[in-house]
Amino acid sequence: MIINIKREKILEELLKVSRIISQRTLIPSLLGILIEVKKDKITFITSDGDTSIKSEIPVGKDLVIKSIGGILIKNKFIIEVIRKIEDEFITLEAIEGSLVKIKANNFDSILNTLNASDYPHISFETEGKEITFNNNLLKEIISQTSFAIGEREKRIVFNGLNIRTDKANNLLVITATDSFRLACKKINYISENDFDVIIPGKFINEIGKLLTENDDIKMKISDKSVCIILNNTIIQSKIIEGKYPDTTKVIPENFVSLLTLNNRDLIKIIERASVLSNESMTTIVTLKIKDNKVFITSFTQEIGNSEEEIKDFHLSGTNQTITFNSKYILDALKSFKTKEVTIKMIDETKPLIIVADEEPSLQQLVLPIRSY
Amino acid sequence: MIINIKREKILEELLKVSRIISQRTLIPSLLGILIEVKKDKITFITSDGDTSIKSEIPVGKDLVIKSIGGILIKNKFIIEVIRKIEDEFITLEAIEGSLVKIKANNFDSILNTLNASDYPHISFETEGKEITFNNNLLKEIISQTSFAIGEREKRIVFNGLNIRTDKANNLLVITATDSFRLACKKINYISENDFDVIIPGKFINEIGKLLTENDDIKMKISDKSVCIILNNTIIQSKIIEGKYPDTTKVIPENFVSLLTLNNRDLIKIIERASVLSNESMTTIVTLKIKDNKVFITSFTQEIGNSEEEIKDFHLSGTNQTITFNSKYILDALKSFKTKEVTIKMIDETKPLIIVADEEPSLQQLVLPIRSY
Repeated sequence: MIINIKREKILEELLKVSRIISQRTLIPSLLGILIEVKKDKITFITSDGDTSIKSEIPVGKDLVIKSIGGILIKNKFIIEVIRKIEDEFITLEAIEGSLVKIKANNFDSILNTLNASDYPHISFETEGKEITFNNNLLKEIISQTSFAIGEREKRIVFNGLNIRTDKANNLLVITATDSFRLACKKINYISENDFDVIIPGKFINEIGKLLTENDDIKMKISDKSVCIILNNTIIQSKIIEGKYPDTTKVIPENFVSLLTLNNRDLIKIIERASVLSNESMTTIVTLKIKDNKVFITSFTQEIGNSEEEIKDFHLSGTNQTITFNSKYILDALKSFKTKEVTIKMIDETKPLIIVADEEPSLQQLVLPIRSY
Repeated sequence: MIINIKREKILEELLKVSRIISQRTLIPSLLGILIEVKKDKITFITSDGDTSIKSEIPVGKDLVIKSIGGILIKNKFIIEVIRKIEDEFITLEAIEGSLVKIKANNFDSILNTLNASDYPHISFETEGKEITFNNNLLKEIISQTSFAIGEREKRIVFNGLNIRTDKANNLLVITATDSFRLACKKINYISENDFDVIIPGKFINEIGKLLTENDDIKMKISDKSVCIILNNTIIQSKIIEGKYPDTTKVIPENFVSLLTLNNRDLIKIIERASVLSNESMTTIVTLKIKDNKVFITSFTQEIGNSEEEIKDFHLSGTNQTITFNSKYILDALKSFKTKEVTIKMIDETKPLIIVADEEPSLQQLVLPIRSY
């Protein structure tokens, strides 16, 4: 394998595929980037065992192929060497003894490689039922729901984002939960196909980073896997097996108190109250509604307490004192780009719901913390 | 103690004095900021036992004092609370039970404090022999020498910067070394007083951060301590006891090879060669002069190697192969703001010296690493 390639082009692809690599993999060859040079193109493949990515550059003004072949190489040093080179083009040459030579003007580096024949065969499936998303809508869905995915939860179905069709109402329903909070987005969607799939959080977050263009995005869903094709890149993932719980049952419908207020102000007030906690601690804040006054308070034994009165709000219903994890409530509030939000409450033991008139497609649920 | 104070003003002073606090102190009260309110001013004091700082704000448009008193408080939460407040002025009030209340519009926070009576008495000495520095010159001295201070060296005299007068030559000689490298700056200086003091590295680095104005800086040196007064702030430190070694003896005077080259290019080439190392390792690079060619090479068993030929240089003398710690050589090269530098060598076991024609006041010495 000998190629001459535009430095910034190969760097871009190496950085893109590197993100998939997991240092915790049990298969040593998955620590590497598989670089394959065919007659007409170079491909870069990485995988963490569940999520895999393949990116390619065709022969052209950015790439001249002198001989074909392949190498498997750990990402760190090849990226660091190429990043530091200042020339426009570099030469990559596989040399005997599992080495690769990176050559630029006056500069030569020879790096150790891994054994490419150890790399597992990964087939990239591009068949399956298709959902088409507008690029900006997909970005919005990801940013408004993916934070609630319980990536470390033991219950494996919570490790992913649930996407399902609701044909009766012509909706696509996207749900994420870690069992302490839940994000749900409903978009209008007329479809021939029915879906109810759980897509791994890592795949969802990677798509979020890859989306740059303004084209429509096609997601292909088969029985076992999901994939997206973006220009020169295919990213695919195994689908999480299992049945996603029916979350419609956990979302209350009748509330006792409704509080509507400025979202940006509320975020700042909760952030101020959240200051009084050590990094290792869950930060707990309390929303107190009493005699037509509204307060955000916080208390930490070792540090102190704070209280702030909220001046501008619209309230209906009874007094409330509800304590919650401030990170969860902040994530939920920040997912709304609206000026105002409405917090719907029942009592200090029931989930609270955040909605916004201007954004009817989105609903955030946060479970309170019992305070004793 | 009750005061009303401009938020950004108190925040600035709290941040300034906070930097001195060491989390490794054995005296718990030194974890706090001592805030003292007198009739005419508020003062902020911190100390790590060796280096201490006192800063003050006088009564005026930024400060109204309603009652005097004092508190001792850990820096983190008071700073975080004040940072998050958006009002222009805040009220600070010491309340019973060793608490302090921070009050802004609609917002109240009560923080625990420490016992102010536990705080050691620190007297700020402003007497002693005086050295006056031009502000920019002092900044330059610090940036060109302080990196070589051996702050973790067991030999305690290496923990500081040596400043001594050389009356015979009308020079002030500033030296820092960690025994692997040495930075020496000589500036013209006509003085009535003689000095030979070792000033702690921490004090030197703090001054570097405090210097903002373009005034002359007066450093006062007594038998035991050194201090600088900068506007509303006094920073002082104990002087390191002991005799600084006579470093003139370790700097060679006769060399075998002289290599003059572009400093910026050389820095980039060494940085490129330094890529091939794990974070935990000392990065080693080799300067090789052979048959009128000059190379920078590096080699790491597990990773690979690199070689780069330097094209533009002026060389006199014999072949050399000298291996060194790349961090040390980079620190030394970066201390020169000149276009060219000259590297003077004897052989692979002797210190190399870096100088620049355009900056005759500065000399950097780096010990080679024996390669086997």
